[in-house]
Amino acid sequence: MQKMSFVLFGATGDLAQRKLFPALYNLYLDGKLPDTISILGLGRAERSDKEFQSKVEQSLGLYSRRPVHAASLPAFLEKFRYCAFDATNMDAYDRLHELIETREDELGIPQNRLFYLSVAPGLVDLITSNLHASGISQQDGWKRLVVEKPFGTDLETARALNHKLSTVFAEEEIYRVDHYLGKPMVQNLKTLIWANPLLESVLNHQQISNVQITASETVGVEDRAEYYDKAGAIRDMVQNHLLQLVMMTASYLPVNLRKTTDPVQKTDIIESLEPIMKELAHQHIVRGQYEPGEIEGTSVVGYKEEAGVDDSSKNDTYFAARISIDHPSWRGIPFYIRTGKRMNEKSTQIVIEFESPAEDSHGLQGLSPNLLVLEISPNESISLRVNLKDPASDRFKPVWTKFSTDSHDQPEAYELLLHDALRGNSTFFADWKEVELSWKWTQPLLEAFQEDLLPLHLYPAGSTGPAVVNELLLPGKLEWW
Amino acid sequence: MQKMSFVLFGATGDLAQRKLFPALYNLYLDGKLPDTISILGLGRAERSDKEFQSKVEQSLGLYSRRPVHAASLPAFLEKFRYCAFDATNMDAYDRLHELIETREDELGIPQNRLFYLSVAPGLVDLITSNLHASGISQQDGWKRLVVEKPFGTDLETARALNHKLSTVFAEEEIYRVDHYLGKPMVQNLKTLIWANPLLESVLNHQQISNVQITASETVGVEDRAEYYDKAGAIRDMVQNHLLQLVMMTASYLPVNLRKTTDPVQKTDIIESLEPIMKELAHQHIVRGQYEPGEIEGTSVVGYKEEAGVDDSSKNDTYFAARISIDHPSWRGIPFYIRTGKRMNEKSTQIVIEFESPAEDSHGLQGLSPNLLVLEISPNESISLRVNLKDPASDRFKPVWTKFSTDSHDQPEAYELLLHDALRGNSTFFADWKEVELSWKWTQPLLEAFQEDLLPLHLYPAGSTGPAVVNELLLPGKLEWW
Repeated sequence: MQKMSFVLFGATGDLAQRKLFPALYNLYLDGKLPDTISILGLGRAERSDKEFQSKVEQSLGLYSRRPVHAASLPAFLEKFRYCAFDATNMDAYDRLHELIETREDELGIPQNRLFYLSVAPGLVDLITSNLHASGISQQDGWKRLVVEKPFGTDLETARALNHKLSTVFAEEEIYRVDHYLGKPMVQNLKTLIWANPLLESVLNHQQISNVQITASETVGVEDRAEYYDKAGAIRDMVQNHLLQLVMMTASYLPVNLRKTTDPVQKTDIIESLEPIMKELAHQHIVRGQYEPGEIEGTSVVGYKEEAGVDDSSKNDTYFAARISIDHPSWRGIPFYIRTGKRMNEKSTQIVIEFESPAEDSHGLQGLSPNLLVLEISPNESISLRVNLKDPASDRFKPVWTKFSTDSHDQPEAYELLLHDALRGNSTFFADWKEVELSWKWTQPLLEAFQEDLLPLHLYPAGSTGPAVVNELLLPGKLEWW
Repeated sequence: MQKMSFVLFGATGDLAQRKLFPALYNLYLDGKLPDTISILGLGRAERSDKEFQSKVEQSLGLYSRRPVHAASLPAFLEKFRYCAFDATNMDAYDRLHELIETREDELGIPQNRLFYLSVAPGLVDLITSNLHASGISQQDGWKRLVVEKPFGTDLETARALNHKLSTVFAEEEIYRVDHYLGKPMVQNLKTLIWANPLLESVLNHQQISNVQITASETVGVEDRAEYYDKAGAIRDMVQNHLLQLVMMTASYLPVNLRKTTDPVQKTDIIESLEPIMKELAHQHIVRGQYEPGEIEGTSVVGYKEEAGVDDSSKNDTYFAARISIDHPSWRGIPFYIRTGKRMNEKSTQIVIEFESPAEDSHGLQGLSPNLLVLEISPNESISLRVNLKDPASDRFKPVWTKFSTDSHDQPEAYELLLHDALRGNSTFFADWKEVELSWKWTQPLLEAFQEDLLPLHLYPAGSTGPAVVNELLLPGKLEWW
């Protein structure tokens, strides 16, 4: 891998401690870091390199999925330097520039610079402009910008932000992180199908009845009320993660079709999502908010009682939708998506429901639809449900089975994403067209919520969400899995 | 169910004790016997009804899959009467006739008579003729003849036997037992596919590479040398059981095709088997015989050392074949069958191997073919093998999963078969056309063995059979599973 500088804005923040340092370390253990890399951590606080390195070490002890390997640790920490940095102060950029160049000289690194922005959303365009103004981003080597979510708060702000970034970085230099795209199961969707003709042959237009994508959490708003009460589930989960999962599922799964035509791109899918007009949103969308309830035996407060939330808030902590994709591969096959906080379980999964067996025509009893479940988190697995005859009753009953590699050595999403960013592979990052079209599809729903055009359904914490969600599942035969 | 007489020839024999009485009893427990049934046991020995009933009771204690239920036992045993019987003596038939009619009168049973022949093969045509001659089989009600294997020893003897039977019984009155057709997994093949669109969609001509049917035993010739040394694996297992499994698999699995055309019948399949000329048998067939070896840690003798076997015997205790089916559903998809005594494990299974994933075109590593395994015995299960990416190595590896109803309340083959015979459903019995065409296909192989046109491959007891069997698997890429 090419020698490079890795400039991390927000190096004293939570994401860096919990995810980025451990990810870099595990890549290092796997020999997946460049042999020569200068890692510069930036934060507002004053710190010595030594102090910073010891913070990095501390984070590894707390969060690395593999134990710290004492003998090789010093060589890893030696890659890190610290730079106190105020993003609003141009002098800071000059000092940063100098440090970057000093380390490039010391280590013999060409001007390949990766800028990782793990900072407050409001600072992204400022830092980007200043990277340009200070000359840091004008160099002989390559440059890359990695940006964390959120990318805008609606269609207009997203477009404005992208316009600013694009004056400094070309589209192919911008890596928009959606950490759901870093999950191994999501990344492996395509090869999983290639590797298994058996799966390939079942995933075709004739056999699939519907697709259900669920991302449920048991946590509430935690200490993020200030952000979350403005964002809601729709911005926090739907516009980005769930729509990305829809795109991944719909573009990688219909492989039978791809044999004879061009590959289906993610943008083909997001472009084909049938728009939902805000006036009709109530027919397609369920908006919910949690009330007090119980999670794993413990009473928890309702959303409106959470610290930092206004007690008249109509913010959505639950969102479900029926989505139609007007694309030859998926026409007539509805996608159902749902996400919520304070649900009964923490789980992210894609469920493919197959056409129901023709029970009536053969007089068989006890049949249920076959299901293929791709569990993304908290564990990774593939499950199938088939109908087997119960010899005792002579009726069929649904029986589950699960495939699993039984590997406990699973890389975390950020390892895969960082590794891709380091080697310049943007496959599993959100490109602008995807982001823009996602916002475009979401925009009428934001307005419907804003204008209160559809009811806010309350659900008890610890439940499966508002019961009314079943009404999305026409013609009534279907179930949410 | 209709009232009837059940006349069992061979009621003091091994099959009756081990299988038929327990099967009748378990049907009784399930309410699947006719409310009124006269069961007449026939044997050479003199016995009182009481002695006979106590033998029946004894067999239940030893062999019933469910415990004997004391309260309801007397009513079950009361259905049984005994008749000492010499098949070669016409007087015996008259006494039998009288007993049948007496019981019919006592119980108010119409002249519905099921004759179950569990007797030496040489007696079948004699008994059948005498049933006719004595008038027992000329009656007002219906009549059925249930015959155990073997049905002839080659094409000519089978035809002769069938000709004799058919002068007394119509084809639809003859139930030829093949107990492999009584196994629940075999009987459920069709509904299993109907019940699972997911399986239905994978079982199509494009995706299946080959089918492998294995019936292996760990036992040797036991005390059956007199019969077995004349029959060999080819008569004992291949002409009947394995060819029936080929017919079942090939006629029930290609369901995609059946949607658009007529159902594929078992006779369509057996008619389409490409004949193997005796001169070319060595290209398609492996004939084997076990040598001394070890089974589960115990030394066992070779076939030639078995009691009752001539030490120059060239009899086959192992048989494997590559079979081509010249039928639109299966053209180009070879079937491999194999059976053997003194193998490393006891197992009957159907393995469907899917086309190999296109490893090269996508640079994926570690791929193996997907497999669907229908285990028929000793346990019933459905297993799938898919390729999952091993996160540690980033290579794929094959991972198994098994579906099972976890039911320990599985009916035995003879329960299902007897129940069908009692209610006049001959679906899972071998019809004459199937038997005749099976013998016809087998005949050149019998001659090839007889004329020693192909080598006899020795294999150690406890092994997987002769290594040369892999040469059947052209083009060499395939494996026996």
